[in-house]
Amino acid sequence: MRIAVDAFGGDNAPLEIIKGASLARQYGQQLVLTGSKSEIERCASENGVDISDIEIADVPEVITYDDDAKAVFKEKRNSSMGEGLAMLADGRADAFVSAGPTGALFMGGTFVVKRIKGVKRAALASVIPCVGGSFLLIDCGANAECRPEALEQFGVMGSVYMKKVMSVDAPRVGLANNGAEPSKGTELQRQAYRLLSENGRINFVGNVEGRDIPYGACDVAVADGFTGNLILKTVEGLAGAMFKMLKGVFYKNTATKLAAAVLKPSLREFKDTMDYSKYGGAPIIGLRKPVIKAHGSSDCEAIKNAVRQAVSWSESGVTEELAEAFAAAGE
Amino acid sequence: MRIAVDAFGGDNAPLEIIKGASLARQYGQQLVLTGSKSEIERCASENGVDISDIEIADVPEVITYDDDAKAVFKEKRNSSMGEGLAMLADGRADAFVSAGPTGALFMGGTFVVKRIKGVKRAALASVIPCVGGSFLLIDCGANAECRPEALEQFGVMGSVYMKKVMSVDAPRVGLANNGAEPSKGTELQRQAYRLLSENGRINFVGNVEGRDIPYGACDVAVADGFTGNLILKTVEGLAGAMFKMLKGVFYKNTATKLAAAVLKPSLREFKDTMDYSKYGGAPIIGLRKPVIKAHGSSDCEAIKNAVRQAVSWSESGVTEELAEAFAAAGE
Repeated sequence: MRIAVDAFGGDNAPLEIIKGASLARQYGQQLVLTGSKSEIERCASENGVDISDIEIADVPEVITYDDDAKAVFKEKRNSSMGEGLAMLADGRADAFVSAGPTGALFMGGTFVVKRIKGVKRAALASVIPCVGGSFLLIDCGANAECRPEALEQFGVMGSVYMKKVMSVDAPRVGLANNGAEPSKGTELQRQAYRLLSENGRINFVGNVEGRDIPYGACDVAVADGFTGNLILKTVEGLAGAMFKMLKGVFYKNTATKLAAAVLKPSLREFKDTMDYSKYGGAPIIGLRKPVIKAHGSSDCEAIKNAVRQAVSWSESGVTEELAEAFAAAGE
Repeated sequence: MRIAVDAFGGDNAPLEIIKGASLARQYGQQLVLTGSKSEIERCASENGVDISDIEIADVPEVITYDDDAKAVFKEKRNSSMGEGLAMLADGRADAFVSAGPTGALFMGGTFVVKRIKGVKRAALASVIPCVGGSFLLIDCGANAECRPEALEQFGVMGSVYMKKVMSVDAPRVGLANNGAEPSKGTELQRQAYRLLSENGRINFVGNVEGRDIPYGACDVAVADGFTGNLILKTVEGLAGAMFKMLKGVFYKNTATKLAAAVLKPSLREFKDTMDYSKYGGAPIIGLRKPVIKAHGSSDCEAIKNAVRQAVSWSESGVTEELAEAFAAAGE
């Protein structure tokens, strides 16, 4: 298996990406870094990172937040991200990891890698820690506006991903809504509720409220991208804010500092359970090959985890099962 | 000033409500409990609660979650909630606190108390703790579907409330959105962004993302009720879930239990800062008189705080300023 990694995506590129790829050699797959060969080699040698058995796909450009998303397959197709996507399209790689701009990666995934036949919209998903484990939120912002049929497909896509990649049996699929009753939400949620409840491929558990999601009310929370983005970011923001406020509690005086020192190892464990990056990155589901959006602030551990995720996903059979599920839908 | 309190709303009625009203006598206003006089008197005497200088508006019925929301001004207008609303409408009370069903209270507020002239939709708001203070989220679920003009008015309503009741100077009004740029969101957010930014009465700071809201990015976060409900409930759920997981950290072993004992007072303080009920209840803004939805699980402290909030709100001049602001809009 060949996994392409965008060496120039994210805030800490290229050093942390190169280090992450170096660490990810432990998964025993052929890795390919995309981007300027000379810069990658200089960065690796200057920082003593061993990339001896990693290939480099040499391209000069980099996609930035200032670029239009379409640049990735137009004027900047010779970019580290554009090349990774092209490698998936023409069979030179089996999966692609990038910490570059989400919009470009999503649009490039849709137009270069292309959707699985029958998939109306690819979706950006995210595995989020919760009480007792984790759940997949799908979509997290790629599709701000959706039709009910897209939400139904997100339910199927999320369910297959959680089953095959995260080993969850019969994943419980919930629809993020402002109340439990089927009549809740806007017309979009009411129609999506009906479609999801009639879909025989999934284990639909009905509407899930914001209050219940962090307690693990479902394994897959379905939302349009606007709603999903606000849920994801609120969870991220509040968890960070609470850790910050907690720090204030610990640093209050000498006694609390000493007590905090005793708790430090278990607190670190707790903080780790709330750390998204251990799950890798955000999978873009519904494309013909796995594309993973690593967080913009990814360090080498996060990149290593995203490569591990890319390997499991490639081996999982998700794409085949989705192709089969949506074959009837045509395109 | 006369403050009506629904003695039979919420999970802990009537005892906690009666106790809360008794505690709230400290604010020096005339309190009126609504509901069955004999039941209120029996409950107070059985539990040794002093209600000697509290009036009772004697009505037999109670609004439950099984009732249609409209029942509050139709077949059950003789209920503890219906009577409180009627008292506002006919001038027998200046503000009303109820921990009963939100839908009935909101609909009753709109049709019995009535909106301020020019207000398109009353809104359910909520003061939520954040890093460095608190912010008002408006709407929190009463108006699942909104037009852009309603979101603009929510911005004005929230701003006036925060200024007059919460003493925030030039409140920063943000629009909850999935990105900072004015082009983000759905058509609703894009249009609302334009209206809010052109409104001279408010200090509009642009879009606010879920990630920034818990850090205090704005004093007023404007959202349609569907989105606002999911933000509010996710914050509630995640805060609760994190405290639950934190407990696991503390109870891990003898050493952590001892350390946790040292931290207990500061942790309690922290938990208190995250406690909504200290702000009272959720104000229904845009009606001709203050109506406060106390949490269904309110205890006597929460009810006492909601009465305090009702007093400040009545004295604040919010209604007059909103009447002036929306006078031009007509009805």
